[in-house]
Parts: sequence; C-alpha cells; structure tokens
Amino acid sequence: TPPPQTEPLMSSSPAFDSEAFLNKEILPREVELQKAIQNVQNNANYGWIILAGALVFFMQGGFAMLELGFSRSKNVINIIMKNLIDFCTGSMAYLFLGFGLMFGISYNGLIGTSDFWLSSYPANSPLWVFWMFQVVFAGTAATIASGAMAERTKFNGYLIYTVIISGLIYPILGHWAWGGAAGAFGGTGTAQGWLVAIGFIDFAGSTVVHAIGGACALAGIIVVGARLNRFTPEGRPRLIAGHNIPLAALGTFMLWFSWYGFNAGSTLATIPEIGRIAVNTTISACAGSTAAMILIWLIDHRPDATMSLNGALAGLVAITAGCANVTPVSATLIGVVSGVLMVLATILLEKVQLDDVVGAVPVHLVNGIWGTIAVGIFHESGFDLKRLGIQTLGTLTIAFSAFTFSYLLFKIIDITVGLRATDQEQENGLDFHEHGATAYPDFKTNDQRL
Amino acid sequence: TPPPQTEPLMSSSPAFDSEAFLNKEILPREVELQKAIQNVQNNANYGWIILAGALVFFMQGGFAMLELGFSRSKNVINIIMKNLIDFCTGSMAYLFLGFGLMFGISYNGLIGTSDFWLSSYPANSPLWVFWMFQVVFAGTAATIASGAMAERTKFNGYLIYTVIISGLIYPILGHWAWGGAAGAFGGTGTAQGWLVAIGFIDFAGSTVVHAIGGACALAGIIVVGARLNRFTPEGRPRLIAGHNIPLAALGTFMLWFSWYGFNAGSTLATIPEIGRIAVNTTISACAGSTAAMILIWLIDHRPDATMSLNGALAGLVAITAGCANVTPVSATLIGVVSGVLMVLATILLEKVQLDDVVGAVPVHLVNGIWGTIAVGIFHESGFDLKRLGIQTLGTLTIAFSAFTFSYLLFKIIDITVGLRATDQEQENGLDFHEHGATAYPDFKTNDQRL
Amino acid sequence: TPPPQTEPLMSSSPAFDSEAFLNKEILPREVELQKAIQNVQNNANYGWIILAGALVFFMQGGFAMLELGFSRSKNVINIIMKNLIDFCTGSMAYLFLGFGLMFGISYNGLIGTSDFWLSSYPANSPLWVFWMFQVVFAGTAATIASGAMAERTKFNGYLIYTVIISGLIYPILGHWAWGGAAGAFGGTGTAQGWLVAIGFIDFAGSTVVHAIGGACALAGIIVVGARLNRFTPEGRPRLIAGHNIPLAALGTFMLWFSWYGFNAGSTLATIPEIGRIAVNTTISACAGSTAAMILIWLIDHRPDATMSLNGALAGLVAITAGCANVTPVSATLIGVVSGVLMVLATILLEKVQLDDVVGAVPVHLVNGIWGTIAVGIFHESGFDLKRLGIQTLGTLTIAFSAFTFSYLLFKIIDITVGLRATDQEQENGLDFHEHGATAYPDFKTNDQRL
Repeated sequence: TPPPQTEPLMSSSPAFDSEAFLNKEILPREVELQKAIQNVQNNANYGWIILAGALVFFMQGGFAMLELGFSRSKNVINIIMKNLIDFCTGSMAYLFLGFGLMFGISYNGLIGTSDFWLSSYPANSPLWVFWMFQVVFAGTAATIASGAMAERTKFNGYLIYTVIISGLIYPILGHWAWGGAAGAFGGTGTAQGWLVAIGFIDFAGSTVVHAIGGACALAGIIVVGARLNRFTPEGRPRLIAGHNIPLAALGTFMLWFSWYGFNAGSTLATIPEIGRIAVNTTISACAGSTAAMILIWLIDHRPDATMSLNGALAGLVAITAGCANVTPVSATLIGVVSGVLMVLATILLEKVQLDDVVGAVPVHLVNGIWGTIAVGIFHESGFDLKRLGIQTLGTLTIAFSAFTFSYLLFKIIDITVGLRATDQEQENGLDFHEHGATAYPDFKTNDQRL
Repeated sequence: TPPPQTEPLMSSSPAFDSEAFLNKEILPREVELQKAIQNVQNNANYGWIILAGALVFFMQGGFAMLELGFSRSKNVINIIMKNLIDFCTGSMAYLFLGFGLMFGISYNGLIGTSDFWLSSYPANSPLWVFWMFQVVFAGTAATIASGAMAERTKFNGYLIYTVIISGLIYPILGHWAWGGAAGAFGGTGTAQGWLVAIGFIDFAGSTVVHAIGGACALAGIIVVGARLNRFTPEGRPRLIAGHNIPLAALGTFMLWFSWYGFNAGSTLATIPEIGRIAVNTTISACAGSTAAMILIWLIDHRPDATMSLNGALAGLVAITAGCANVTPVSATLIGVVSGVLMVLATILLEKVQLDDVVGAVPVHLVNGIWGTIAVGIFHESGFDLKRLGIQTLGTLTIAFSAFTFSYLLFKIIDITVGLRATDQEQENGLDFHEHGATAYPDFKTNDQRL
Repeated sequence: TPPPQTEPLMSSSPAFDSEAFLNKEILPREVELQKAIQNVQNNANYGWIILAGALVFFMQGGFAMLELGFSRSKNVINIIMKNLIDFCTGSMAYLFLGFGLMFGISYNGLIGTSDFWLSSYPANSPLWVFWMFQVVFAGTAATIASGAMAERTKFNGYLIYTVIISGLIYPILGHWAWGGAAGAFGGTGTAQGWLVAIGFIDFAGSTVVHAIGGACALAGIIVVGARLNRFTPEGRPRLIAGHNIPLAALGTFMLWFSWYGFNAGSTLATIPEIGRIAVNTTISACAGSTAAMILIWLIDHRPDATMSLNGALAGLVAITAGCANVTPVSATLIGVVSGVLMVLATILLEKVQLDDVVGAVPVHLVNGIWGTIAVGIFHESGFDLKRLGIQTLGTLTIAFSAFTFSYLLFKIIDITVGLRATDQEQENGLDFHEHGATAYPDFKTNDQRL
C-alpha cells in the first residue's frame, strides 16, 4: 500500500498527471517511458535535497558565529566546541537511535519503532537522502540552547544534554508532527504521527525545530541561572555586550542564506512551489528585521543592531511553519508581528531576570509558537477556527513537552555531573578553565568586564 | 501569443526539439509525454534558480564583510546595519512597487506598468521563482553605494536612498535592458525594454546591477564628500587602512562564491551552457586579481592585498555582461583589462579627491561599463561595429541615468534630512553616535586614527 | 566507441534501462522521447555539478580562514594573498596546460596529451562543466601546502610552487587515478590512467587531492624549516597559538559545508547514490572530531579546540576516497581512526621537529593515505586482499611521487629565488615585510610573541 501523504512534507511530486493515461489503452513501453520521466524528476529532487541539506548544515557555523559574537571574548572557544561537538555527537545518536524513533514504524502515532540501524539500506536507497536532510534539522534543534546558556554552562554537562536531545527528545516529539514522512523515501515507517493525523501543519519546523530548541533553551537558562553579575542584587539588568558584532552579523547572514535550504528544501522536491516559499522566507525576514528596528528605535531612540539582526531571525523562524501555505502579503504581516514579539519578549525576559545571551527564547521559542499559530490565521484557504485550534494545540503541546523533558534533564545533569560553572570559572572565562586556551592571544583585551 | 525571447535571459530551455515531432503524425499520448518531459526540465530549472538566488542573497553578507573590513572599527555596526536594512526595506519596496516597474507590461519599452501586487499569483506560479531571483539582484545593486560612502554617511539618509533605488530607479533602468523577461515565467509583461529591443546584451548585469550601483556610489561620494582628514588641506590623500583584512578577504571569497549563482544562474535554466559561463566567471576573476597584483607590484613594489582582492571583484563584474557569449580566452583578456582599469581608476579617484572607501566606483562602475563594452569587442560571433555601438550606448545611457537620478536624490536628502555626519560624529565613530554601541568592546583599540 | 567507464567517477547516469527497449520493435519517435528524457537528466546533472563546483571553490575561503586563524596576526595578509593568488594563477595554468595533462588523450596511462587549449569547444559543450569541477579540485590540492608552511615562507617562492603544482605535478599524478573521465563529457581523452586501469579506487580524491597536497606540505616544511623559535635549541617544541580561533572555526565549518560538493558532487550526476555519500561524509567527520576530542582529552586532560576542528577535517579527508563504496557504519569507523591518526601524527611531527602550522600533514597526507587504504578494508562488496594491495600501492605511489617532485621543486626555489624569510622578517611579520601593511591596524596587539 502506498504511504499516506503527510501534510508537512510535499514528498516527491508526480512528474505528470498519470490519470490522463489510465483512461486509455496504454502500451507497455509507454509505461516504461512514464517511469523513466518520473525517475529523472526523482533524481533532480535528490540533488535539490542534498544541496538544501548542505545549506542547513551550514547553520551550525552560522549559530557558532552568532553566539560567539554576542558573548565575551573569554568564552569563545567554549561556544565553538559546543556548536561543533553537539552536532558531531548528536548526529551519531541520530544515526543509531533518533532517526528510528522519529521516522520508524509508528506505535499509535506516539513513537517510531524501526530503522534504527540503517546500514542495511543499499547505496542507492533514497532513504539516505532523506536521512541527510533530517540529521541537519536535528542538529539545528539541539544547538539552539547553547547560545542562550552561553558563558556559564559546563562543557560536559552540555554534551550529555545534546546527545539526549538529538537521540531521544527531539525525535519523539518530532514523530508526532512529521512521523510517516520517511515512507515516501522507502523507509518502513509510513503511518502518521498523532498530530499530523489530526491536521497539524508545521511545514518546515517552526515548532518541531525552533520551538523545541527554544523550549530547551528556556529550561536551560532557568536551571543554570543567570551569568555572574548579569543582574544587580536588586534585580536590575546589567548590559553584557557581545564582543564581536561583525561575526554575529556574519552568523545572521549565514543563517538567513541557509534558511532557503531549510524552508524551500522542505518540499523534498524541486517543484514550482519552491518559488513562493523562498519569497515568503525572504519577505518575512525583511519585515521582521525592519519591524524590530523601528520598535527599538521608538523605545531606545536608536536603531540597535542586535535587535535588527535578531528581528531577521525572528521573521525566519515565524515563517517556517507556514511558508508553503500563505501569500507573501501574509508573510509580511507574520514577519512584522515576529519582530515586535521578539523585542517585547526580550524586554520581558530581562524583567523576570532570565539571562538569555543571544535571545534564543524570543527568537526560537516565542516565534516558533507564533509562526505555527499564524498558519491557523493566515492559511490561504481562509480562516478556519478548527485549524487555529489544532495549530495552537500542536505547538503548545510540543513546546510544553520539550520544556518539561529538558527541564528534568538539565536538573538531573545539574545534580549529578554539574551544569553551572563557578563564579571563579566565569570570571576567568570558560576558555581558560575548560579548554586551557584563549581565542585571541595576539590582541590586548580590556580588563574582564563585569 | 508566446512571449518574445529576450536576449539577456536564456529562459527555460526546450527539453527536446519538438520540430521533429511536428512533421509526423503525433498520437495524443505522445504529446502528453512531451509535456511531462518539459515539466521535469522546468522543475529542475526552478531548483537551479532558487539555489542560485540563495547564493546571490549571500552577497549581502559578502558585501557587509568586505565593507566593514575596509573601514575603521568605530564604524562597523553602522555598515552592518546599512547592509542588512537596505536589503530588508528594499525587498519590500521591490515586492510592492519595483518588480512591476521592471517586469510589468511595458509602456513603450520605458517602464513596466503591471504586477505590482503579486499575491494574486498562486502558490505554484513560476513567477515567484523569477521574483526571488530578481529581488536579490535589486538588493545587490542597492547595497554597492554603502561601501563607497562608508564612515561618514548618516543612517536615515542612506535608508531613504535605498528604498528609492530599489523601488524606483533600479527597476526603471533595469526595464530598459531586461524588460519582458518575466513573460517566460507567467508574468504579464512580455514586451521588451527599449535597449534589449535594439540588441543590447547584458547577460547577468554588468550594467544593470553593477554600473547602476557604481554610478549611485559615485554620485554619493560626490554629494557626501570625503571623510574627515582623508585629504590634506593641499589635497594630498592620507591612507585610512581597513581595520580587519581577514573579514575583507572573507567577504571577497563569499562574493566570488555567490557570483556562480549570479552569472550561471542568469541562464534561468540548468542547461549545458552553464558550464562555460562558470568557467568564464572563474577565469576572469583569476586574471583580474593577478593583473591587479602585478600592476600594483610594479607601481608600489609590493603585492598589495586590497588591490588583489578588488582585482578579483573587478574581473567578476567585467565578465558578468558577456559570460554567455565569449570564449574563456576572451574572458582571460577581459579579466586582465579589468584588473588594470581598477587599479588606474583607484589612483585617479584619489587624484581628484574623491573618497571611495572600498573602491566601489573602480570595481563596479568602471568595470560594469568595461564589461558591457567588452561584449561588443569579444562576442564569439565576431567583431561587429554596430554591436559595439549598441553596447556602448546602452551602458553609458543607463550609467549616466543612474548617476543623474541618484545625484539628485542624494542632494535632496542632503538638503532635507541630512546626509553627512558631522566632524564630531565622524571622530567618535558612527557606531557610537548612531547606534549607541561598539563593535568590539573586549579589545583595546588604538587612539582614533586620523 | 563509447568511453570506458572509469571507476572513480560515476559519470552521467542513464535515465532508464534502455535494454528493455532494445528487445522490442521501437518506433522512431520513441527513440526521440528516450533521448529527450536522457537530455533532461543530463541537464539536471550539469546544474548539480556547477553548484557542487561552486561549493568546492568556497574551500579556498575556508582554507584562508583556517590558516590565518591558526597563525599569528602579523602574518595574516600573507596567508590571504597566498590562498587568493595560488588559485588565481593555478587556474590559469590549469586552463592552458594542466587540464590537458590530466584528462587529455592518454600516453600509456601516464600522461594526457590533448585538450590544452579548450576554447575551441563550443558554448554548450559539457566539457566546460567538467572543467569547472576539476579546476577547483586542482586549487584545493595546491593550497594545502600554504597552511603548513605559513609564517616563514616567501610570497614569490610560494607563487612559483603553486603554478607548477597546479599546471604540472597535480595533473600528471591525477591522470594516473582519474585519467579518461573527461570522455563522458565530450573530451578527447577516454583511455584510463594506469592506476585506474588496475582497479584503483579514489572516488573523490583522498589521494589525488589530499595526499598530493599533504605530501607537498611535508616536503615544504622540510625544505623551509621550522619557524623562528618554534623549537628550543634542545629541540623541545614551543606553543605558537593561533591568533583568531573564531575564524579558524569558521574556516572548518566552511570546509565541511563545501565538502558536500566535493564528495557528493564527484558522482558528476544527481542520482540516488548522492544520499549515502553525503551521509558517510557527515558521519565520518562527526566520528573524526569526536574521537580526536576524546583522545586529546585523555592525553591533555582537556577538550582541545584545535584538535577537535582538525579531527573533523581528518574524518572528511579519510572518507573522501571511499564515500561511495562503504556503509555508514564503516564510515563511522573510518572517521574514528582518522581522528586518532591525526592526533598521533601531530604529536609525532612535533617530536621530529617538523613545524606544520595548521596540521596539514596529519590531516591531509596521513588521512589521505588512510582513507584510500580504508577502501581496501571496508569496501561493501567484502574484504579483498588484492584490492587492499592496489589501494595501498596507488596511494603510496602517488604520495611518494608528489613528495619527491615537490621536494625537488622547493629545493630549486630555495636555491634560486629563495623560499625562507629571514629571522628579522619573521620577527617583524610577513605582512609588514612582504605586503607593507598590517591586518588589524585598529587593535592593540601584544608584543611579538616568540
């Protein structure tokens, strides 16, 4: 039996309307020609997916630059190591465990149960193409927390988190929204996850990737606590400015560039629809950045770079769920709201004394949820209260589950191997304490700030 | 009626010679197979265009790195904001106004008049694919001036310029050379612009993107004036060295990488011709860089990095017009000349006391014009005086128009909201004055240079 | 006669099984449809190759960032110039000489003898697509030595090396393993090189690109000698830490990203097999980085960033030969061994007082050889002693030849124009002495280290 068509992934498009042939007497050799044509379309799709996957891999570099640029120079190597090694260990966990939990044969729509040891698939199985695209998404979800928790989180505690999020938590929650999608690529898991079965739409992962990553970030910054001296004893915030704004900007441009693979690649096929998806992605980022800049200009009387850069990322996160289902005018509105929400959430986090170094919660959690709900509001087929309800239910359920699981996980790590660096370690910098090195030995640096 | 084939864009290639079929009795189902084959080719083209477009988007990051690397550390955030926000606001202006002026139904080959509000096109319209590719070209043209005018141009004055160039000036001038190209992607504008109608060839935009951007840069540096202390009272130039050569080099590599999308992507189809286009792009950049290095080595007795990096960009700009129409040997010659012209133009600009921080005029204006004229000299179908005349007429007309419009625009901005930062603001740096921040708070910097 | 199928390159895949048709009576118009279908597949392949080639070009930027990040701030411009100009001059040497030696008509499997002046091939010849992909591989091989020999090698001596390696040595040795591959793209050279004729497998160039580049690096650091003060008079190593770890990390991420073009692009066709190749590439890099981190953690009691970054590159180099022929579990093992070998080789090099600034010999030479031999061990068709022998013979022959030729070349350069910068030049930095400039004029730097 053919795999059920899942909503979030478009799967390989039919090259032509075969209905037209079914009503006629078909010569056998015409069937072979049809197969050959479909085969070429499939091959073009594979090239498209691998290049899109390579772009999404590049986000690891983008996150590393963004996060280290927004941190102090004494914690740079630590950030690099986290962004490198979380992908390295997470990918192996995803190869041998996570992928099967996410895309294996579904147990009641709750969890995958097959395809854990993929090496039996032959060299020309398209399932490898699919796996490549999925592992870089898992890596993105896992790495988001590293930026929020930067400058005071121990390296080995973080490593434990990252293996478990990539191998266990992300795949199980992801199964709910994307389970069954591997069937179109020859995987054994064809039955849908429970959320997609009730109509939940998260095309490229506003919820699955960004809200999960952002929820882990929120749990992490609660458990690990704020950086030393980030807040005064009276709870007033102190500014700890990022040490290298050019690299933070570079990271943002790299992420935006890669997002075309993230969103347009999620069609899993090179089809006309990729055009509007790319347009929506562009215009929402533009609107998010512009809106954030204007709002902070009104509040702070100057166009702030950090907010403008994060505004672009907010717009990208928010359009990710609905990029295939809304018009560019709707994408503009979704982007504008995303920029406003990001600025407000950043201010609110400071008010409640939560220390998010790069703004991962405002960007990924808040706008992952907003973008998913926005599909219920702006879906081009018209407003539908039931759809809005399903979207809200889906994103909140997954975000809440991710928060709960990761909160428990961080707590256990904190109690056992330890999560928070001591005040002394923070003062001297994690680079010195954890890695015995310094990122810029040639440059004279200012006295340790704060 | 089918849209007229425009010269500069190859449009979607026919998958096979349908003439062969027309001379025979064709069974209806064979026609359907033909359509299916063409459909797969079209789909492959769409993937190609979106990936090429993503590459061209990445040029925003490349320009940001190049420009900030060649500036002083006190003006870095300002450059980042200009390169980010000009694309953000410009894209929205292009979505709601510029695209229609450039590719809408032509009024006498002078201006487009439709497709201003594109959201009515459905999700699977290939026009979105085309739009995505065009908006990143508009962004490139708009951002070129920011580098030339860096370190003394106010942020809000620059923002006004960028919205008007992206939404109005670039699209109208672009219509002259590329108008009608949207027809092949389902747009309503199928009639050619007046320049393309007389045979003007600007395949990927030496004139449309680079000469326009470079002409705006020239107008801008004339209106805004040189940086404080850039020239002595006697008019002798003082060196203001860039503060971060690694990031300038990174920007150059990013731009070169992206240029494969810019030039080869301008086929708008994945066809055999993309090979030689990519080869020409490569070899012209190589020749430009080598020639510039050798020339400056002869003049200054050392191989200068700035000139070598800009030499590569000069070669890239110069081959952009003719990359589909010249042989690699010609591309080598075009590149050699481009590097020489860039060095000479840089020296000349200093002589006339024009202050171009990154060399945008020598790279983009001079070589945009040179590359367009070079098509008239090196076209592989042989030298043709009439073609040379049309090429020269076309590039000079567009460059002169862009200069005139942008000169007036900058003058109006200067008189109204103000364009030039005060001496005090320049001394303290635009980052402090306009954005209230510093790009590298951890590093000790030298006393303000100059 | 059709070109013989060479092992290392998959060439353009047949779009469908034409045997099925040959056994039937075929109508002429069906043959035309078959041709049209194959034509679309070919076109999709060309887009795939050009985008993969652009990615491989981006490695030039990645190497530049990696190398300058691992060097001192006083030698940064010199590194940039070497990485820029070696590609620029090398590409021209490859266009007019090298390509013909590598892929021209074979003289007894030893050397190519045609296609030196490619401009006669028309605009739509797929040979240009093939050339584009090959020139960026030549550039990669040539640039590897620059990092190992950084901080004490004169610029003009290096330039001579790079033209000869790109135009002469790399092409001749490459012919042995890849000769004949141009035939499938319309080149005149269709007969195989002597190594591929006996069954040598080097799918994407562990030996051809990386072992050659690494062998040149080894020869170079022997001839040029260690940096001033790198070893004490008693031969004890002194640490000379890299000055910009963020840019070194960025370079690694850029290289990894580009490697998807390097390895998956080497199919020269968009076919299902690209999926597992990309997976193997990913997982070997992950395993290499993790293994290197763990080993250095055990030895030095801290997770070192330099070793972790180089571990990823080691895994990438090692999987390059066999990525199309091993399972992902084997790729994991190949990666683990690569990380261990890299760490051990780094320690060994220091012991014998060889000064390799970036670890090019441990990464590219050691793992180029290891990865090629690993095909003999892990080939999915089962262990075969004869294959292991051929693999070992092939990689050692090419690596030894490259070492010998480049050793002689460096010696001749050393004796004639000079290769090593004087102690005074090294103390002041090559940027000042060779390029009359400084990379970071705004930042206060520490007194010259060492």
